[in-house]
Amino acid sequence: MAPVAAVTRWRLLLVLSAAGFGAVGAPKPPNILLLLMDDMGWGDLGVYGEPSRETPNLDRMAAEGMLFPNFYSANPLCSPSRAALLTGRLPIRNGFYTTNGHARNAYTPQEIVGGIPDGEHLLPELLKGAGYASKIVGKWHLGHRPQFHPLKHGFDEWFGSPNCHFGPYDNRARPNIPVYRDWEMVGRYYEEFPINLRTGEANLTQVYLQEALDFMKRQQVAQRPFFLYWAIDATHAPVYASRPFLGTSRRGRYGDAVREIDDSVGKILSLLRDLRITENTFVFFTSDNGAALISAPKQGGSNGPFLCGKQTTFEGGMREPAIAWWPGRIPAGQVSHQLGSIMDLFTTSLALAGLALPSDRVIDGLDLLPAMLRGQLTDRPIFYYRGNTLMAVTLGQYKAHFWTWTNSWEEYRQGIDFCPGQNVSGVTTHTQEEHTKLPLIFHLGRDPGERYPLSFASTEYLDALRGVTLVVQQHQKTLVPGQPQLNVCNQAVMNWAPPGCEKLGKCLTPPESIPEKCSWPH
Amino acid sequence: MAPVAAVTRWRLLLVLSAAGFGAVGAPKPPNILLLLMDDMGWGDLGVYGEPSRETPNLDRMAAEGMLFPNFYSANPLCSPSRAALLTGRLPIRNGFYTTNGHARNAYTPQEIVGGIPDGEHLLPELLKGAGYASKIVGKWHLGHRPQFHPLKHGFDEWFGSPNCHFGPYDNRARPNIPVYRDWEMVGRYYEEFPINLRTGEANLTQVYLQEALDFMKRQQVAQRPFFLYWAIDATHAPVYASRPFLGTSRRGRYGDAVREIDDSVGKILSLLRDLRITENTFVFFTSDNGAALISAPKQGGSNGPFLCGKQTTFEGGMREPAIAWWPGRIPAGQVSHQLGSIMDLFTTSLALAGLALPSDRVIDGLDLLPAMLRGQLTDRPIFYYRGNTLMAVTLGQYKAHFWTWTNSWEEYRQGIDFCPGQNVSGVTTHTQEEHTKLPLIFHLGRDPGERYPLSFASTEYLDALRGVTLVVQQHQKTLVPGQPQLNVCNQAVMNWAPPGCEKLGKCLTPPESIPEKCSWPH
Repeated sequence: MAPVAAVTRWRLLLVLSAAGFGAVGAPKPPNILLLLMDDMGWGDLGVYGEPSRETPNLDRMAAEGMLFPNFYSANPLCSPSRAALLTGRLPIRNGFYTTNGHARNAYTPQEIVGGIPDGEHLLPELLKGAGYASKIVGKWHLGHRPQFHPLKHGFDEWFGSPNCHFGPYDNRARPNIPVYRDWEMVGRYYEEFPINLRTGEANLTQVYLQEALDFMKRQQVAQRPFFLYWAIDATHAPVYASRPFLGTSRRGRYGDAVREIDDSVGKILSLLRDLRITENTFVFFTSDNGAALISAPKQGGSNGPFLCGKQTTFEGGMREPAIAWWPGRIPAGQVSHQLGSIMDLFTTSLALAGLALPSDRVIDGLDLLPAMLRGQLTDRPIFYYRGNTLMAVTLGQYKAHFWTWTNSWEEYRQGIDFCPGQNVSGVTTHTQEEHTKLPLIFHLGRDPGERYPLSFASTEYLDALRGVTLVVQQHQKTLVPGQPQLNVCNQAVMNWAPPGCEKLGKCLTPPESIPEKCSWPH
Repeated sequence: MAPVAAVTRWRLLLVLSAAGFGAVGAPKPPNILLLLMDDMGWGDLGVYGEPSRETPNLDRMAAEGMLFPNFYSANPLCSPSRAALLTGRLPIRNGFYTTNGHARNAYTPQEIVGGIPDGEHLLPELLKGAGYASKIVGKWHLGHRPQFHPLKHGFDEWFGSPNCHFGPYDNRARPNIPVYRDWEMVGRYYEEFPINLRTGEANLTQVYLQEALDFMKRQQVAQRPFFLYWAIDATHAPVYASRPFLGTSRRGRYGDAVREIDDSVGKILSLLRDLRITENTFVFFTSDNGAALISAPKQGGSNGPFLCGKQTTFEGGMREPAIAWWPGRIPAGQVSHQLGSIMDLFTTSLALAGLALPSDRVIDGLDLLPAMLRGQLTDRPIFYYRGNTLMAVTLGQYKAHFWTWTNSWEEYRQGIDFCPGQNVSGVTTHTQEEHTKLPLIFHLGRDPGERYPLSFASTEYLDALRGVTLVVQQHQKTLVPGQPQLNVCNQAVMNWAPPGCEKLGKCLTPPESIPEKCSWPH
């Protein structure tokens, strides 16, 4: 897992940037702070049109920075999206997908056997080449077995959990999720780290905030550039907030969680100001996938005017709120219509650090600095996968669907609805509909809600199809899928006895090892 | 039609305001500038989350002023909404409704016999009591027969048309709509005032912009306070823009129209700055009803996250973009969650002018100055009518539907869809569903899209119902409906021979007079 040879290009970059947009401070690459939300939707921020407008700090961050209204996750589900962020590669390449069924979403529950492959280069590993200290605060979600531990993949510090904060479990059929500090667990959710499902009270966002503030202060004292990956999860069901925020939102408990996050982001940016490192700290805010409409209205967010939500490859499933903030470098109050991807945060971070991209593999992320610093727009496709199936692609303003599916009739009849209140005939289908020969194409500018497929006979359709076909053919011709990591499950690999459990007296006995195909219903 | 006795209270107001929020200039009541859009939706502005974000001037207006995310029209259709704005009264009171069918929307097409009753006091009539010069630029829509002429109802000047810019007609079965300057027509749409339906080109917004700028400059020279009602219609189908704006939007022709309007608003606010009268000019931007989704995606706008559009009493039909701007008086960058109504512009304008409200009738509008100047919130209901049927009411965060209906199955099967891509079971119904005994209640904060009715058995439902019931009983007990103006149609009353037609040689011969019940299908 040694990082590839890294050419330190950042001195050159700083010289260029000094010429282009301002004075340069210490000869140190900028700090990188990624604020990654969990199941937060495009429409959850005031600046993105949320009617209650309860995110003054994030709205101010946008006013001081650059908004990306056309920014996408790499998958409509958490684990693959996060793996893509940290590898700069599509889940189909880095292995975060399943082949157990056609076009199935998969992630890393406790029983998953797989995780991030050793062969993948993660961003914090590579950033070591430029002297960065790296910390992950919050949810890892790239595999919870020992070989997948974030400190084995480049992070220097970790405070958080390997899986979602589901529970409470009985520690017999299923253990509660551990919370780690660095190498060892320090407790479990619903035990040492309580979440009150009835009231929604949990102080975790405050804890994660303190972890972030402390880390940044320490790195500033040490004069080390830092990479902080703040992957908090208060907006993922079960949604929670700490007591001072409970009941304060016009939007209910979900809004309470958003308000606490907004307040925390305000405090993080304030610290950067207080430490006088705003001009040397690149901050990016986004989310891992669209709002989970199955949990709405009490535990799910908003995808604004977009179609459907998490789990789907419609815009509501993968278009994300995104704000870049770097006062003095990124011009204030700008909007970029660059098609952006969560994978771009990998490539952009390496560019910021003056590091070369790994040259032995395909990297899907784009360097966003030209867009952010010079308003440049680069043509690039956005691919929408479900499992190993390419469901759709966006190119310019056109989105082509090769497959449409929400979920099965069986699930839908049980009340599992990824598109509540929405129904576009022939589009939000409950059977997997193939359109690979003649894709459904939408113009996302005129029709962001994907309601009006272009007429197959129109010149506009034929022109768009021509462009899309070329890009997809090229993509598929050169694609080498990684070994699928999300096929095999086993109750024995759950978090029974994480490292450090002995000290706490919290080791549990795993059941017999029975590997089986994971069941991915949608 | 003499205005009621007007007590000039504005000196007192100015003294109070000087104490409260800054120095006072000349002892003259502030100018009032109402920018009323046509069929523009809540979601059409960048500041309201439109993804293409093409309204920099309106977004800046919001940043410098106050945003009202909970602002409503008085009707989901144009004429009643405009009558409500200018009278401060619900259409059921001022006569802008029909009783020809149950819960039917009605407006003022060319064949309408009715119009604004003489007994109604219009805002410009009343503002004469404080010395205002008043002009309407654009669409009147309060009746086109001679007795309804805007200059007979308080306006000093008019440039625009009495009806929608539908056409072109053949001037045999149906005349083209006239365009008036003051008392007389100066031409007709598609003749002297061309609109190219193929290309979407028309220079009308530029003409309306010049009319506005000229009027304001003249009043400034004359040192008269002015009331300018800028009721432009480029976003009403057929949507149009002038050549420099055509093809410039990411959103297609509708976006071109929005961009031209945004540019025009920028020029209007610039003129106020150039004339140094920003601190003495109150500006309010809003729209007459929700976006016309039947015209989407090419000729209709966006209602953001809200349900359905124009013609319906769901949020998408009646919640409007709204921005108040008065630098130095209204604090910059604020958001008010006051439930606001287009009728409040009547009451607020009278308060600004220091005039008393008419005391001989019910006024539904609220004075928004306490909300705008002091951030005060006042409890008040929003009533949603269709014809003479109270369909719904919003009180605080709760909206109760007494009737649900989109349109008939017959229309829907013909492809007339007021809720494209949206379908909430039991809510977006195609038969008129009565819920007067047990209304469907939604919490608009958690559920702005009206997708999840509260459980009838919940405490929350019962509490909300209690509040709503009291307010509705009080409303209905005291309600005295006006004489319905929108019941009778007659081909003979169309714009065959408007005043001034002789000079232009453009008089047409009306057919035989045959009054009949207007047909209002939805």
